[in-house]
Amino acid sequence: MSAPSRSSARPDSAESANSGGVQFADIDAFHRWYAVVADRTHMSVERLALDELDGWAYDETTGHIRHRSGKFFTVESLDVQVTSGPVQRWSQPIINQPEVGILGILVKEFDGVLHCLMQAKHEPGNHNGLQLSPTVQATKSNYTRVHGGRSVPYLDYFRDPDAADVIADTRQSEQGAWFYRKRNRNMIVEVTGEVELVDGFCWLSLDQLYELLSVPDLVNMDARTVLACLPFEGGRPALRRSAETEHPEAENAFVAALLRSEQAECGVHSTHEVLSWITDTRIRTDLHAERGSLAQLRDWRRADGRISHDSGLFFDVIGVGVDAGGREIASWTQPMIEQVGTGVVAFLVKRIDGVLHVLMHARTEPGYTDVTELAPTVQCVPQNYDLLPAEARPPFLDEVLAAEADRIRFDTILSEEGGRFFGARNRYLVVETDLDLAQEHRDHRWLTVCQLAELMRHSFYLNVQARSLVVCLRSLATTSTAPREAR
Amino acid sequence: MSAPSRSSARPDSAESANSGGVQFADIDAFHRWYAVVADRTHMSVERLALDELDGWAYDETTGHIRHRSGKFFTVESLDVQVTSGPVQRWSQPIINQPEVGILGILVKEFDGVLHCLMQAKHEPGNHNGLQLSPTVQATKSNYTRVHGGRSVPYLDYFRDPDAADVIADTRQSEQGAWFYRKRNRNMIVEVTGEVELVDGFCWLSLDQLYELLSVPDLVNMDARTVLACLPFEGGRPALRRSAETEHPEAENAFVAALLRSEQAECGVHSTHEVLSWITDTRIRTDLHAERGSLAQLRDWRRADGRISHDSGLFFDVIGVGVDAGGREIASWTQPMIEQVGTGVVAFLVKRIDGVLHVLMHARTEPGYTDVTELAPTVQCVPQNYDLLPAEARPPFLDEVLAAEADRIRFDTILSEEGGRFFGARNRYLVVETDLDLAQEHRDHRWLTVCQLAELMRHSFYLNVQARSLVVCLRSLATTSTAPREAR
Repeated sequence: MSAPSRSSARPDSAESANSGGVQFADIDAFHRWYAVVADRTHMSVERLALDELDGWAYDETTGHIRHRSGKFFTVESLDVQVTSGPVQRWSQPIINQPEVGILGILVKEFDGVLHCLMQAKHEPGNHNGLQLSPTVQATKSNYTRVHGGRSVPYLDYFRDPDAADVIADTRQSEQGAWFYRKRNRNMIVEVTGEVELVDGFCWLSLDQLYELLSVPDLVNMDARTVLACLPFEGGRPALRRSAETEHPEAENAFVAALLRSEQAECGVHSTHEVLSWITDTRIRTDLHAERGSLAQLRDWRRADGRISHDSGLFFDVIGVGVDAGGREIASWTQPMIEQVGTGVVAFLVKRIDGVLHVLMHARTEPGYTDVTELAPTVQCVPQNYDLLPAEARPPFLDEVLAAEADRIRFDTILSEEGGRFFGARNRYLVVETDLDLAQEHRDHRWLTVCQLAELMRHSFYLNVQARSLVVCLRSLATTSTAPREAR
Repeated sequence: MSAPSRSSARPDSAESANSGGVQFADIDAFHRWYAVVADRTHMSVERLALDELDGWAYDETTGHIRHRSGKFFTVESLDVQVTSGPVQRWSQPIINQPEVGILGILVKEFDGVLHCLMQAKHEPGNHNGLQLSPTVQATKSNYTRVHGGRSVPYLDYFRDPDAADVIADTRQSEQGAWFYRKRNRNMIVEVTGEVELVDGFCWLSLDQLYELLSVPDLVNMDARTVLACLPFEGGRPALRRSAETEHPEAENAFVAALLRSEQAECGVHSTHEVLSWITDTRIRTDLHAERGSLAQLRDWRRADGRISHDSGLFFDVIGVGVDAGGREIASWTQPMIEQVGTGVVAFLVKRIDGVLHVLMHARTEPGYTDVTELAPTVQCVPQNYDLLPAEARPPFLDEVLAAEADRIRFDTILSEEGGRFFGARNRYLVVETDLDLAQEHRDHRWLTVCQLAELMRHSFYLNVQARSLVVCLRSLATTSTAPREAR
């Protein structure tokens, strides 16, 4: 969880391709820069019992775990009743963080190629310490400095930008299984002037970022959700995909189908039909989720300084103590959620009339603002279903797990948000299938990538796992990190 | 509020233009049919004290007024804190109706012209008794028959329609000042087969409906909000607008600008900028609305069998007793909201480069699901501002009220929903302006009609008053009730 602290020189300035700051001629150069940052920064994290946390306490009145400032977040209980799914009533701990934070990426063209300003950043929940984060990743408590820490670099670019510079700007949900109606503002802002490079930040082209997505636990969740909001076109040559001929023949047809999908406003279902289906799922599913005291939790126990489910499954609420270098503040303690097991997050994709379609699942999670959001085809921790009857097993899970190697287009373990979740990792997969959905699956539909992008212009249609996977999918149309012009 | 009951023949079947049922060769024929329906149906409504209501009682535990069945709706209090606007903290009664009802219009082409199946229907709050309603206007309590009444005609067309027949299907909010997070499913479903005509229903072409919008208190709110969701095109000739030459010269340029606006995906702001602005207003405005007991109301009094504000302004919660013919059940009592005064609901519109733009207001109402929705330029009951300082006066209200006659394009008093609101009426206006918004109005933006239509494909962007006015605005491109082909 921590790298040893050590004094070190600034990142090798030989990597800077031009006056814009740290850029990389190839991906190896990035990795060398990243290793240097990892070497000279550190964050040590130790597990603590919940009652050992400093400034956090169990509030006798509300029954929540809260910070003495009243800020950041609380851990509460949620009593859930839902009309569908294998389990229709349960209670669970949940994080309530009503503030809307900013996740922002600053982008700039260098020599006609769009680059993203990324930060190599530690988070206490990252099992490998450092991950690649967006330019800004700030809760309101962060940027209004409730904790009295340092100011957030580059924040001003996102606080009051010129409308014309805003490439994406929408609120999106996060894990509805662990967060109660959490939403963050996902922003991409373009800058044309000089940008001073702060230590630990670098410029990466989109193609480089896409390539780095296949490195386990490198591009963090916040970076992925912001990248997902990047429009495909918008009149910018740098965002356009071009030739299909860059790819070896075997992948060529797949990539061509993917590129067609990015342009396909209509697939096997019109967007109009898709919207009606979403309306229907949101009305058809009755979800009642009531927040309450942790004392009301059924089937959960508070022991050994943590809160755990009696079965040992799902997740624990734990405490951690953090000692950090290079952060707004140097040390703190906090509660976190620790997922039990590694999840599977997968798209089944299929070429239909030469256009790639993605099988989306209208999924209910108790913390969603609006009952259901579109999720990947499969999203689960398989072992959570061991105690349930066979018919509760998630649809298409076996299709994904049994896929032959040449049908697996993407397969990388990626981390969930390290600020609240402790070592939460999921295996992200894109699996091609010929599956013929002869029988109607009421909660699944085939959508094009263009339709997914259109939905992401609005809030709360695609869940955070689906947004991550859309970025992984789009990365498959990139095989080179060279500037587009050089190809 | 009531028309005398009297036995009468079925509506004059001479009005039926063909085997499809009751249609009208001209608008006078409609009025004759409507007069016959009015004559032979009745609803008598009397005011009752809240504590005289049968089946409704003040719940000592929750402090709400509720029905003994636990269904329909409750009247609760809402404690509101908001970071913008002239008043930043207040409490008020509010209706909580969590069930999602269906507002549906069945449409069918006759001789190539799209017709809507409309119902002449009494509601207790309609000051004139009968109004023109959608095909289906049913709460969940209605259609699951909580009250043990008759089945809702035509409901099955909307319960499980073929996807291809669904023309519009989206949840939309209703009055956020009086309803806590109320939403209804707005649906338009096309039918090709024979439809049996139930007594009190008729087929009206779109042009006829548009013409009837200028009759005071005729087309009800539920009909307007569903019509607002009708797409402009969608490949259907019957939905398309065509020649500009149908209109006299003076209006011609205005109508041409309106028709261009219906096609203009981009106006002075791109849709992308508009979405970012909406995101910003929703994040910038902190709204806290907490439901509670009516006993907690500050500045409201419960006397004379009603709940009223100490100032006598805003609205009262009253009780009514209803005796109806031709309804699911024949008599009942219920609480209602009685607005004090008649409101002003107005669009300022402007031709910019030949394209009509509508000045929209990002408005916060305490009952909205998502903080702000786009509202008309002006939406208020002017007298409510008499007690407030001059700077609290709504922006652009004086611009609207002082408009010269030849700039007023639409001006009709229309009713709000008569099932919950008692005699609530607003003056709906479309006023053309040359106003140059030199200074930035942070909460106002110029949008095209096409952009408004695109937003209405999704939930909770346009409020119910704005949706009504969009229909009024679109009606201005129609001057004839003759079938389009005949022009």
